[in-house]
Amino acid sequence: MSRTVGCIGGGQLGRMLALAAAPLGVRFRFLDPSLDACAGDVGELLVGPYDDPGLLDRLADGADAVTYEFENVQVEAARRVGAAPDARALERGQDRLVEKELFRSLGIPTARYGSLEDTGLPALVKSRRFGYDGKGQRIAETLVVLGDDELAEEIVPFDRELSIVAARGRGGETVFYPLAENEHRGGILAVSRAPAPDARQGEAERIATKLLDALGYVGVLAVELFEVAGTLLANEFAPRVHNTGHWTIDGAVTSQFENHVRAVLGLPLGSTEALGESVMLNLVGHAPPVERLLAVPGAHVHLYGKAPRPGRKLGHVTLVDADEARIADVAALASSAWQS
Amino acid sequence: MSRTVGCIGGGQLGRMLALAAAPLGVRFRFLDPSLDACAGDVGELLVGPYDDPGLLDRLADGADAVTYEFENVQVEAARRVGAAPDARALERGQDRLVEKELFRSLGIPTARYGSLEDTGLPALVKSRRFGYDGKGQRIAETLVVLGDDELAEEIVPFDRELSIVAARGRGGETVFYPLAENEHRGGILAVSRAPAPDARQGEAERIATKLLDALGYVGVLAVELFEVAGTLLANEFAPRVHNTGHWTIDGAVTSQFENHVRAVLGLPLGSTEALGESVMLNLVGHAPPVERLLAVPGAHVHLYGKAPRPGRKLGHVTLVDADEARIADVAALASSAWQS
Repeated sequence: MSRTVGCIGGGQLGRMLALAAAPLGVRFRFLDPSLDACAGDVGELLVGPYDDPGLLDRLADGADAVTYEFENVQVEAARRVGAAPDARALERGQDRLVEKELFRSLGIPTARYGSLEDTGLPALVKSRRFGYDGKGQRIAETLVVLGDDELAEEIVPFDRELSIVAARGRGGETVFYPLAENEHRGGILAVSRAPAPDARQGEAERIATKLLDALGYVGVLAVELFEVAGTLLANEFAPRVHNTGHWTIDGAVTSQFENHVRAVLGLPLGSTEALGESVMLNLVGHAPPVERLLAVPGAHVHLYGKAPRPGRKLGHVTLVDADEARIADVAALASSAWQS
Repeated sequence: MSRTVGCIGGGQLGRMLALAAAPLGVRFRFLDPSLDACAGDVGELLVGPYDDPGLLDRLADGADAVTYEFENVQVEAARRVGAAPDARALERGQDRLVEKELFRSLGIPTARYGSLEDTGLPALVKSRRFGYDGKGQRIAETLVVLGDDELAEEIVPFDRELSIVAARGRGGETVFYPLAENEHRGGILAVSRAPAPDARQGEAERIATKLLDALGYVGVLAVELFEVAGTLLANEFAPRVHNTGHWTIDGAVTSQFENHVRAVLGLPLGSTEALGESVMLNLVGHAPPVERLLAVPGAHVHLYGKAPRPGRKLGHVTLVDADEARIADVAALASSAWQS
């Protein structure tokens, strides 16, 4: 009685989903334009455009559920395969303006947004669509004219960046991981620590719950938050497993990947309890020699099998309840990758 | 810089090796006579006899290491591919008489063995070769004549069955997991608990060390032990990852599977520290519905993707630091599988 899940996208998130699914007797099948898609190492790979109707039908054929691993999947493609999370989540998340207005309509606080008159100066100007990892962003110092596809956002003097990863099952039941505290470098996530100390967990869960329920959501969702003077502002949500939840593989009873698989298949969700204090460090650009990473006691190394390229996420390392010296050892190795 | 490991055998042990290897950027390639070999879900599968020279050469072609996942691999096959662990471990382990004499030559205590005159009556009569999970065993009540391929073993009034799983790296460094306490049912492992309370860890490590060093061993090795009146007798060793070490996936910092991969590739070994008190229960015969297993909080479910068959190991469940009620819930589900 083996189950199959189809997944639009075959990157590292798909790969980690398949690795979490295998012990449940669940196989993954991926659709990705790249023959080298790294999820192909651990599942069946259909190679072609994400929106190819014939391939989408093959992806869904005999599958017990179809999901996706990136937020720029075409809404029509997700509809065609009856994806979980529902295509609505993509629709609302793909346009930053629609996303912010969803937050507003649900009473979820955000930074000011709209025109530069709305935000004041200086402000961040972002593409409304297809931005990620800080791409498509610039700072406006003067009242320039924005394009139709652009949105201004207030530059928030936040105290820290947090994120909450949540899962909602087919019956509407929800679970929440402890908040993670995140540091970015050049717009790319560098480090997450979880559980974030002294964080407003209840407030974050209320924000996530509003979104999950409004979207009739099934699967894992992440919300990026700014903590400003003790309150939380929602920045954006991602309708998928999230880089700031990678610590859960080694640092929580059930990983975000396993809970996503459980959710889309209608299986009971697993405990999100943290096993200790986790630090997750991204390996970006090129990965340090694996033997040096593995030589750090307690380092859990995750490489994605991707070719090196500046700015590309190639892997991550998680430490649980490690002392600062070991964290510093991994951080030094990870930093060497970013700089080269 | 992705690495590849070849593996003779594509059963659940190979499958779990590949799942542990993927995060290190390591791919597995398997050789198995069955098209349905369950490791084929998570790696490349060459289908054919274990001793086919052409397939063995393909298995080893471009691989950074070749290993095996069962102890009845032909010694010549292991030699041909330069396997780790070395073929010597197979040679000594495949014949129960040779194995016992290795123990004796190393000063490792065992039950009495040899002829029925050596052991006294009643005694266990075992095939010298190709027995596993209690197959090929009978009890002799009278002085019957043994075949050349048979060996008598004293029936030891042991207090409990224990096992130690150890790993030795290419440089001779060794690590040891805490002893597990094991219960068998009909000759098949049913439950392991680790760390075994009040166990003679140091004595077990000395036994394992003698074996590892004598065999110039590289990889994970398990030694099954009887505890009798406070001392340990070696029963047999297995030159591979071991069912009594499955708890390490969820219950130790580094799993036995990851440490085997690290060892055969010459990478640093990982911490064997236990995260808590683990209970591992085998699913044998047919697996209970996965949703019922997953509904038990904290249950880590591992299904191997194998078709049900009486007496066949189909999966296992591990609980870490769980209360007895939850363990009983899983045990009841697991038992229903054995009986049907």
